[in-house]
Amino acid sequence: MSSNRGVVYVKPGRVEVQKIDFPVFRNPAGNEIHHGVILKVVSTNICGSDQHMVRGRTTAPAGMVLGHEITGEVIEKGRDVEYLEIGDLVSVPFNVACGRCRTCREGHTDVCLHVNSERAGGAYGYVDLGGWIGGQAEYVMVPYADFNLLKFPDKAQAMEKIRDLTCLSDILPTGFHGAVTAKVGVGSTVYVAGAGPVGLAAAAAARILGAAAVLIGDMNKERLAHAKSVDFEPIDLTKHDRLGDLVAEVLGKPEVDCAIDCVGFEAKSEGADGKIVDAPAVVLNGLMEITRPAGAIGIPGLYVTDDPGAKDEAAKHGSLSLRLGLGWAKSHSLHTGQTPVLKYNRQLMQAILWDRLPIAKIVNVKVIKLDQAPDGYKSFDAGVASKFVIDPHGQLSKAA
Amino acid sequence: MSSNRGVVYVKPGRVEVQKIDFPVFRNPAGNEIHHGVILKVVSTNICGSDQHMVRGRTTAPAGMVLGHEITGEVIEKGRDVEYLEIGDLVSVPFNVACGRCRTCREGHTDVCLHVNSERAGGAYGYVDLGGWIGGQAEYVMVPYADFNLLKFPDKAQAMEKIRDLTCLSDILPTGFHGAVTAKVGVGSTVYVAGAGPVGLAAAAAARILGAAAVLIGDMNKERLAHAKSVDFEPIDLTKHDRLGDLVAEVLGKPEVDCAIDCVGFEAKSEGADGKIVDAPAVVLNGLMEITRPAGAIGIPGLYVTDDPGAKDEAAKHGSLSLRLGLGWAKSHSLHTGQTPVLKYNRQLMQAILWDRLPIAKIVNVKVIKLDQAPDGYKSFDAGVASKFVIDPHGQLSKAA
Amino acid sequence: MSSNRGVVYVKPGRVEVQKIDFPVFRNPAGNEIHHGVILKVVSTNICGSDQHMVRGRTTAPAGMVLGHEITGEVIEKGRDVEYLEIGDLVSVPFNVACGRCRTCREGHTDVCLHVNSERAGGAYGYVDLGGWIGGQAEYVMVPYADFNLLKFPDKAQAMEKIRDLTCLSDILPTGFHGAVTAKVGVGSTVYVAGAGPVGLAAAAAARILGAAAVLIGDMNKERLAHAKSVDFEPIDLTKHDRLGDLVAEVLGKPEVDCAIDCVGFEAKSEGADGKIVDAPAVVLNGLMEITRPAGAIGIPGLYVTDDPGAKDEAAKHGSLSLRLGLGWAKSHSLHTGQTPVLKYNRQLMQAILWDRLPIAKIVNVKVIKLDQAPDGYKSFDAGVASKFVIDPHGQLSKAA
Amino acid sequence: MSSNRGVVYVKPGRVEVQKIDFPVFRNPAGNEIHHGVILKVVSTNICGSDQHMVRGRTTAPAGMVLGHEITGEVIEKGRDVEYLEIGDLVSVPFNVACGRCRTCREGHTDVCLHVNSERAGGAYGYVDLGGWIGGQAEYVMVPYADFNLLKFPDKAQAMEKIRDLTCLSDILPTGFHGAVTAKVGVGSTVYVAGAGPVGLAAAAAARILGAAAVLIGDMNKERLAHAKSVDFEPIDLTKHDRLGDLVAEVLGKPEVDCAIDCVGFEAKSEGADGKIVDAPAVVLNGLMEITRPAGAIGIPGLYVTDDPGAKDEAAKHGSLSLRLGLGWAKSHSLHTGQTPVLKYNRQLMQAILWDRLPIAKIVNVKVIKLDQAPDGYKSFDAGVASKFVIDPHGQLSKAA
Repeated sequence: MSSNRGVVYVKPGRVEVQKIDFPVFRNPAGNEIHHGVILKVVSTNICGSDQHMVRGRTTAPAGMVLGHEITGEVIEKGRDVEYLEIGDLVSVPFNVACGRCRTCREGHTDVCLHVNSERAGGAYGYVDLGGWIGGQAEYVMVPYADFNLLKFPDKAQAMEKIRDLTCLSDILPTGFHGAVTAKVGVGSTVYVAGAGPVGLAAAAAARILGAAAVLIGDMNKERLAHAKSVDFEPIDLTKHDRLGDLVAEVLGKPEVDCAIDCVGFEAKSEGADGKIVDAPAVVLNGLMEITRPAGAIGIPGLYVTDDPGAKDEAAKHGSLSLRLGLGWAKSHSLHTGQTPVLKYNRQLMQAILWDRLPIAKIVNVKVIKLDQAPDGYKSFDAGVASKFVIDPHGQLSKAA
Repeated sequence: MSSNRGVVYVKPGRVEVQKIDFPVFRNPAGNEIHHGVILKVVSTNICGSDQHMVRGRTTAPAGMVLGHEITGEVIEKGRDVEYLEIGDLVSVPFNVACGRCRTCREGHTDVCLHVNSERAGGAYGYVDLGGWIGGQAEYVMVPYADFNLLKFPDKAQAMEKIRDLTCLSDILPTGFHGAVTAKVGVGSTVYVAGAGPVGLAAAAAARILGAAAVLIGDMNKERLAHAKSVDFEPIDLTKHDRLGDLVAEVLGKPEVDCAIDCVGFEAKSEGADGKIVDAPAVVLNGLMEITRPAGAIGIPGLYVTDDPGAKDEAAKHGSLSLRLGLGWAKSHSLHTGQTPVLKYNRQLMQAILWDRLPIAKIVNVKVIKLDQAPDGYKSFDAGVASKFVIDPHGQLSKAA
Repeated sequence: MSSNRGVVYVKPGRVEVQKIDFPVFRNPAGNEIHHGVILKVVSTNICGSDQHMVRGRTTAPAGMVLGHEITGEVIEKGRDVEYLEIGDLVSVPFNVACGRCRTCREGHTDVCLHVNSERAGGAYGYVDLGGWIGGQAEYVMVPYADFNLLKFPDKAQAMEKIRDLTCLSDILPTGFHGAVTAKVGVGSTVYVAGAGPVGLAAAAAARILGAAAVLIGDMNKERLAHAKSVDFEPIDLTKHDRLGDLVAEVLGKPEVDCAIDCVGFEAKSEGADGKIVDAPAVVLNGLMEITRPAGAIGIPGLYVTDDPGAKDEAAKHGSLSLRLGLGWAKSHSLHTGQTPVLKYNRQLMQAILWDRLPIAKIVNVKVIKLDQAPDGYKSFDAGVASKFVIDPHGQLSKAA
Repeated sequence: MSSNRGVVYVKPGRVEVQKIDFPVFRNPAGNEIHHGVILKVVSTNICGSDQHMVRGRTTAPAGMVLGHEITGEVIEKGRDVEYLEIGDLVSVPFNVACGRCRTCREGHTDVCLHVNSERAGGAYGYVDLGGWIGGQAEYVMVPYADFNLLKFPDKAQAMEKIRDLTCLSDILPTGFHGAVTAKVGVGSTVYVAGAGPVGLAAAAAARILGAAAVLIGDMNKERLAHAKSVDFEPIDLTKHDRLGDLVAEVLGKPEVDCAIDCVGFEAKSEGADGKIVDAPAVVLNGLMEITRPAGAIGIPGLYVTDDPGAKDEAAKHGSLSLRLGLGWAKSHSLHTGQTPVLKYNRQLMQAILWDRLPIAKIVNVKVIKLDQAPDGYKSFDAGVASKFVIDPHGQLSKAA
């Protein structure tokens, strides 16, 4: 059990599965800690935000072990861990959080003040988020384990639903946070920008929150087809109509109650010539157009402080040309940031365990082996309509 | 009583007091209505947002009667007004609202769906807000009177505090809405951008909401001096330090819990050469810099859909170059729009009547005659540290 | 069209269909009003709270026209009605509300200050609630129509779903309010006391709010069987186990996240001898036992200020022997009162129109003729598992 | 430093200062823990809820060390305490909480699931709350120190305001929680039942939350006089008028927006003969009478599950005869339970440090020596208008 392998970022466009160190109870500063556990990773997903790094749109360092969507089994625990036992099956929120600072106490584990020396907020295997080792690996260490981990109450039952439960570490709570901050409620009409996994998770979240109609817009035909197959209303953005007109075809008016940006800073648009170009503000400006007066816009899609790969100077520093005047005239509110997973994962787990939320089907989970991770990254980047879940120990194939 | 005089917008830089029609019970479409009252205007204030029009930064038409901050006495009532009597002294929310549409029922009277044929939301004497006649006049008509008006419970007591109560029609609720949406609570540290009347009202609101420390930033020395005289912490933006450093001088760290933008689209900054230039995004970008992780930014300052007077093309269409990536990294939320005055004015009235909120002193109310209105506009535009209150019938001078 | 017939309360245990006056535009005080409409009643439901009156458990006067669950078509309108047209199909909230007082402006239309001279809050055809004429009739007058009425956007579509939409006037929002105030959310476990129509509506509400598991307790076998048939977890209270044990059989622990009292003051319990006796506090005390720490208890079930039919002296004055110490130890909150229907009916209509909420099936709607109303009252009182919907003009039979 | 002395409950009516064990890093089950700190107690207050035990109205065991209102200096720390240093001056919330269970993660530290084997929720030195050793002593151990403790940012500044800051451990947050759950906001009119320290703290909380008028009712003349001296409106309950009439004398109507019960289960009333008798429901029934429709009632006053000292059988089991029918007719909500101190203490500390909240003056803090504690208990029980703060090491006398 002292060997370990993981997915490593090598250079833009390239990840590799490499031998990596077996986890130890030390934080990124190198100090010994006693509140951590070591997990045997049962499942670990490839995330759209990993793609930003692999595409070279961030300053991620070569050699970094990737992976922040982790489900695992406790195989070792530090002496300060009181409420977890060896053998427990747990979901790991992607946020690393101490549970002891002001923001954690207030429930904002997305911006913990203690786990990142550079700024608020930490995550596993992610640039600028504290240097915690990623979990697309066989084993990973999770600090502040009593606080951070969500234990599944029944291990056998959980293994049966592991394709769904693996979505609790990030994508499902992230979609849910988008929907909640967009103020989705019973009877809402909702527009989700982006039909990738987070977009689908946001749509699924909107549905379980009681939304009347959920529209998803994208330019990717395969993703739109999948969205339709799981009963959302696809909006084909390549049609070159005004977004409002496309919305009106479904709803009878060019307006939704709530809008969710599941695209983020790498937003693109198609020019009249059919060329796809960077258009970092196109999503948010579109959402302000179609969101009703007094509506809210949830923005789980990532916007970065620095985008060295951006085409124009403003975008390089994370600046967008927003039509705030339009939003202001409609009394909009905009809600940004990482998702505080712990705020939502227990309740979403309950919904999954009681068969209310078939998220694996909705995001189209595809289980792959650890060695297939590089191919998974490529397929995902190419836009296939799947969510890739890595199965480092072959436990999911068995479970299914 | 059939004569009337009011402040009329003539051309950029020029307003005049002219004879205007005595109010009738008709809406802007010309239809007879029965739910209105005619008020003898007791006080009516000049607002910073009036200045935008008078400076020619909007598409306001010549001939428009200005004025949306109105307090008055009911002198006539429509046949369907049930809960107001002739003689009642009332505060008029600047929003015209029907009280019958979806948004009004939900409390968003700022974006009423019935009172403006062009878009959501109406106001008196304001460009693009429905064509309702302004109230910087001797008399004015208020529709949906039972719904819109706040009656003062004791007329004599109210006249004694009329300099304070006149602030209920706009400025005080607007500052309060900014503070509420910025999530100011007991113990908060707060930064208010702009030391004009709305900034001071936001600061006053922050204080009565229990804020620990309230900082106000401006470049206008006179306004800063006034802010200090009413016990707020002035931040002199001409010092050319980073905003965070200026904040740290007061709070010991470059960060506040809550931030409120009381400046809006006409934001300016001072170059190294001392020249003041348009910088429409400078305030909001600064607020994202200093607001704590998980903090909120209230934006009562007006941002417009169209700004024909703007220097650059983007700003002409209400677009700003926002550092949204910075705000996103800190999980900020941004809250825009007109204030739904009815949501707040009753409770603020109570605070005034029980001597908890000396708003007239805080915003430095100056009472002027109707004929002095053009001078008031000029002085206000020049940046004097006062809130001008027009006294069309000479009742305030008597009351004081 | 000047004739009218309605369901009249004659004496305890007896209602009759009688000729009644055709509606006029006058309020209970006899004053002419101009904000009302006259509706041709399309559907009007018998409510459990009507039963309290008919059983003689209230001080309802003989001769009162019953009925506060009304859906209808506008056939006449007063001159102050601006946003409704003749022919509109509308849902009537059971609360009469002015839309102009403090509580209405705040969204608490359940306790309107203007429509009842005795105390806050009005309703049609109900004792102590203002004297407004009931709507179990062919025609009825609705005041403050622009404010109170919810117009269905498409009349033909609405007639197709009229069995569902008829539930918007009371029962569905009431169940929903119970669930909302019990803080039901995604993943909640919920216990609903009472498997009558309101209990089923609360259960349906819990489900569309995302509840993981919804349990319904009753002593009526038929109602339990129906609850099971629409996929809720029935809890048979005649089993004589502790409520917590019954809950644990389903959930694995004797505790729910949220509890909803849909029984009210006529609660009963079965003694060891099988005799059913009045036990007005039994439901609430049970809910405090099973609700988790920090949980909330929604109480849509009616508790009255005076219950002349009660067995003991305390209950006669609406006093209950509550184990508040138990609730206090668990930091419970208790939420009482009539439901402000307008707060919820639009969103619930949307959910129905988009096929998210099959409420007619869930509450088992049975359509009856006006002349069958007395039989409907009897069957309902006998505990059949149905919700009776009166069809005064035979329009529902046609629609189905 | 290995000696220790503390206030010990001996029998009903009797406490003594005795030698007690020096704290060790063990929990009540006897297990070693590493997340605790040992504090040198700087100040520790006598609480009204201690009185319930000392009066024999609970099942508190003889020999128990009392005290749950603690401020202290860290003199030892467990190996797993990361964010506190020896010498830090800290406020201890009276709730013992793990920071790791569901309820703690949700902010409900009042009902932590891990620190009490009998039921949810723990406290220091309190019957039924987990067996944690009390802090009316020279030294005390605090578990989960990183999570539980609030560090004062500047020790010298804190010592200057120590009489105020000592109120952060319980009384001030408890009053604040009462006010928050009663939905006190800017402009509210508020009635506080009970002019003891918690009542005064609730009144102070209401004021900093922006209340317009704060009334406090009691039968104790000295306490009423003190309440008046710190600018609240005293309501003398010995006047034998209806509570509503007494309220109307101040407010002009027999109604408040918000009501707070700071009395709890030992409520009493004065009969016509002047005799004071137990009347456990009198406070809550009174509050339902005077609270406005749609209002909320905060209940920080303690209600117990078992009251062996009660006069009647129902009260012995924590049952009260509540006029719930009255509350229901007014759509009231009732909010019970211990206060989750951590939710409020940081912000209240800020308000104190910035001179916004002179709580020591408002509750009339009297500093006494440890040996004077038994006298303090007696005086407090006798109803003097003071809050007793024990100064075990003589540091406050020096500080003042």
